[in-house]
Amino acid sequence: MNQEIPYKIYLEESEMPKQWYNVRADMKNKPAPLLNPATLKPMTPEELGQVFCAELVKQELDNDTAYIDIPEEIRSFYKMYRPSPLVRAYCLEEKLQTPAKIYYKFEGNNTSGSHKLNSAIAQAYYAKKQGLKGVTTETGAGQWGTALSMACAYLGLDCQVYMVKCSYEQKPFRREVMRTYGAAVTPSPSDTTQIGRKILEEFPGTSGSLGCAISEAVERATSLEGYRYVLGSVLNQVLLHQTVIGLETKTALDKYGIVPDMIIGCAGGGSNLGGLISPFMGEKLRGERDYQIIAVEPASCPSFTRGRFAYDFCDTGKVTPLQKMYTLGNGFIPSASHAGGLRYHGMSGILSQLYHDGLMEARSVGQTEVFAAAQEFARVEGILPAPESAHAIKVALDEAKKCKETGEEKTIVFGLTGTGYFDMVAYQRFNDGQMEDYIPTDAELEAGFATMPEIEA
Amino acid sequence: MNQEIPYKIYLEESEMPKQWYNVRADMKNKPAPLLNPATLKPMTPEELGQVFCAELVKQELDNDTAYIDIPEEIRSFYKMYRPSPLVRAYCLEEKLQTPAKIYYKFEGNNTSGSHKLNSAIAQAYYAKKQGLKGVTTETGAGQWGTALSMACAYLGLDCQVYMVKCSYEQKPFRREVMRTYGAAVTPSPSDTTQIGRKILEEFPGTSGSLGCAISEAVERATSLEGYRYVLGSVLNQVLLHQTVIGLETKTALDKYGIVPDMIIGCAGGGSNLGGLISPFMGEKLRGERDYQIIAVEPASCPSFTRGRFAYDFCDTGKVTPLQKMYTLGNGFIPSASHAGGLRYHGMSGILSQLYHDGLMEARSVGQTEVFAAAQEFARVEGILPAPESAHAIKVALDEAKKCKETGEEKTIVFGLTGTGYFDMVAYQRFNDGQMEDYIPTDAELEAGFATMPEIEA
Repeated sequence: MNQEIPYKIYLEESEMPKQWYNVRADMKNKPAPLLNPATLKPMTPEELGQVFCAELVKQELDNDTAYIDIPEEIRSFYKMYRPSPLVRAYCLEEKLQTPAKIYYKFEGNNTSGSHKLNSAIAQAYYAKKQGLKGVTTETGAGQWGTALSMACAYLGLDCQVYMVKCSYEQKPFRREVMRTYGAAVTPSPSDTTQIGRKILEEFPGTSGSLGCAISEAVERATSLEGYRYVLGSVLNQVLLHQTVIGLETKTALDKYGIVPDMIIGCAGGGSNLGGLISPFMGEKLRGERDYQIIAVEPASCPSFTRGRFAYDFCDTGKVTPLQKMYTLGNGFIPSASHAGGLRYHGMSGILSQLYHDGLMEARSVGQTEVFAAAQEFARVEGILPAPESAHAIKVALDEAKKCKETGEEKTIVFGLTGTGYFDMVAYQRFNDGQMEDYIPTDAELEAGFATMPEIEA
Repeated sequence: MNQEIPYKIYLEESEMPKQWYNVRADMKNKPAPLLNPATLKPMTPEELGQVFCAELVKQELDNDTAYIDIPEEIRSFYKMYRPSPLVRAYCLEEKLQTPAKIYYKFEGNNTSGSHKLNSAIAQAYYAKKQGLKGVTTETGAGQWGTALSMACAYLGLDCQVYMVKCSYEQKPFRREVMRTYGAAVTPSPSDTTQIGRKILEEFPGTSGSLGCAISEAVERATSLEGYRYVLGSVLNQVLLHQTVIGLETKTALDKYGIVPDMIIGCAGGGSNLGGLISPFMGEKLRGERDYQIIAVEPASCPSFTRGRFAYDFCDTGKVTPLQKMYTLGNGFIPSASHAGGLRYHGMSGILSQLYHDGLMEARSVGQTEVFAAAQEFARVEGILPAPESAHAIKVALDEAKKCKETGEEKTIVFGLTGTGYFDMVAYQRFNDGQMEDYIPTDAELEAGFATMPEIEA
């Protein structure tokens, strides 16, 4: 063991980022603009301002400013639970007997259980600053809803959460955490919105999806005075806030002169992956250094690996703007047997463009092998990972095992986005040998694609 | 805000303790020896060695050695999840508008969710070193069982856990975490032991207690070849291992020249409190410095505040040695309506002696006010505390609010032993306004005392 590098690298407060990094500024091919579905023209700030806070609209549309100041109040909140540790996985390396050096950036040491709090506090802060009464949102695995509840409780904002029904049922305790933080939680689809009632009529037995819940939350926000909608992933603004993950990681690595060969992250909507890789991708885009960057997604919801790069709605109810992204079609609803998050039909526009331009790769992995990796990791590194995070673990383990075969001393960095304490129903299924591996058929994918709007990009 | 002191003080690896501190070495009145209930003579190392690992017996009986080396392997494991942060509660201070300076040592950033891992790895390590096949134990809230499962998974030891039945039912997911780490979990009382069958016959509807579960685990260990019993609290050895909490806290405070006025911890069997206060108590015992030290216990299980200082069995089935301690009687079973841990009838012998000698004080608090404090804390400090830990929060908040009235700038340090992610059934009861406050009547206490052996101490 190289004892010079500690098990956990914690930055000093003074080393924490004071600015977010906007990777779009360094992209030659910018992500395509959001389109108004009625006119097929780019959404104006005024149009977006009806749904989102004004300052967040500015961030959403800003493709040019490389560094954006993090307001002092948000930095104070970050200090409450950040910096997160960059962990050298000495125990895992020893268990695997690999020459690879494995690091993971662990975002689970806060009650939301994930990185989601990084953007939740930013979005809640701008909502508060705009004088709003509250915000609405959707949540899948429950991490984003919890994070937003925490941020709103801190700032004294009302928080209304639409929770994907299958998560609501699998994770009753998530709801109670959100309630403890004062949020109102509704299972989606619900009869509290027009779009929810319509979806329930069409698919009475549906277990819901992020796409449905987004539709409901947007409708709710626009029908209430003094409310706006906030989103936990996909959007440019969210990736921007999440760059604190990558910036801290880079500072910690630089401090010890460590240069990673590959960076691995799980991808649902892309917020964690985008945040983690941004500073590294920036170097790559500027031609300063090359990295292998790998997005890992579930085989049951394979937006990158089997989706199409095209304009699509961000939600199932088709109430949002159109975004150009890798998508399975807004009507695609992943199997209920898939645990946790990463159930989104689309993908961040930024990551989609980077993937399309060959700047990163993607892999899809099956559910059972993901939980096996989670268990292997938990037993040596002491952290029970979220199923989402375990997708990245699976590929990190694969790569470390390859290094054992080849003898290569690669440096692997992966994002450990969160903890699995609220995913024990899924772990129990795995422990009992009853985990299912669902892979959509080509016909099922075609049915999803058929729900996409026909637009000449 | 005093920005010179960071929100979180993390020690460097090189500053982490290399030795545990044995407070007994500085106690003028040593804790009374464990007695053999058959002979009423002090237990010999040979007798104790039938139940406990040899090295742990040595630590249990050592009243003289002030510092005991932490083996290198245990220190490596500690580095996986330690040092734990000493947090300056800036957000809480601001919310309370108190001149008090509040710090908490947060032990919840590991998957066991608490400080219990500190002793679990030590006990599992000595079991492994002795060539044993496995260990048995009991668990109340489930934190100790989880911690031991993690330690055993890491070292490749078999782990059999008797879980107090009411916790087993309230916390199905705790069981799954333990299973994920490879442990076998049995609700107690069970029909897998003689003593369990006897208790079930006598009290068919019992929701169990730590005292019952201890009896079963001890019986199990002594009936299996190559097994020993390990205990998560109460014992001298456990307090010894837990002094890493206090030693880290003291080093962190010293680093910034901070001298606390009071130190507060929750007390069930006393492991967290004993570990936290030991180095400070040592200074007090040696006459170097004075501190106000407060143990906080639930009003429903008030060993210190309403118990008797006398010899008693450590378990309900009367299979353990006799220990002189503050006790409610081994037959006392706390109300099932009391959430989480701190349900033990007795108390650490070390803490009992210190309390008896007037070196620390104790307070009992009601369940509803404890959850209200937990919620208040969670909303500003971002951590959802374990109900056990919230007992300490309640008194810390009380003291900070007193400071607001008096204008005193007291420095308060409390132990935040863990997180409440597996206590959402109890939080839900609180959120729904259905929490119960149970306080035993004098007659109920008398019935408990009547189960104690009559011994002239």
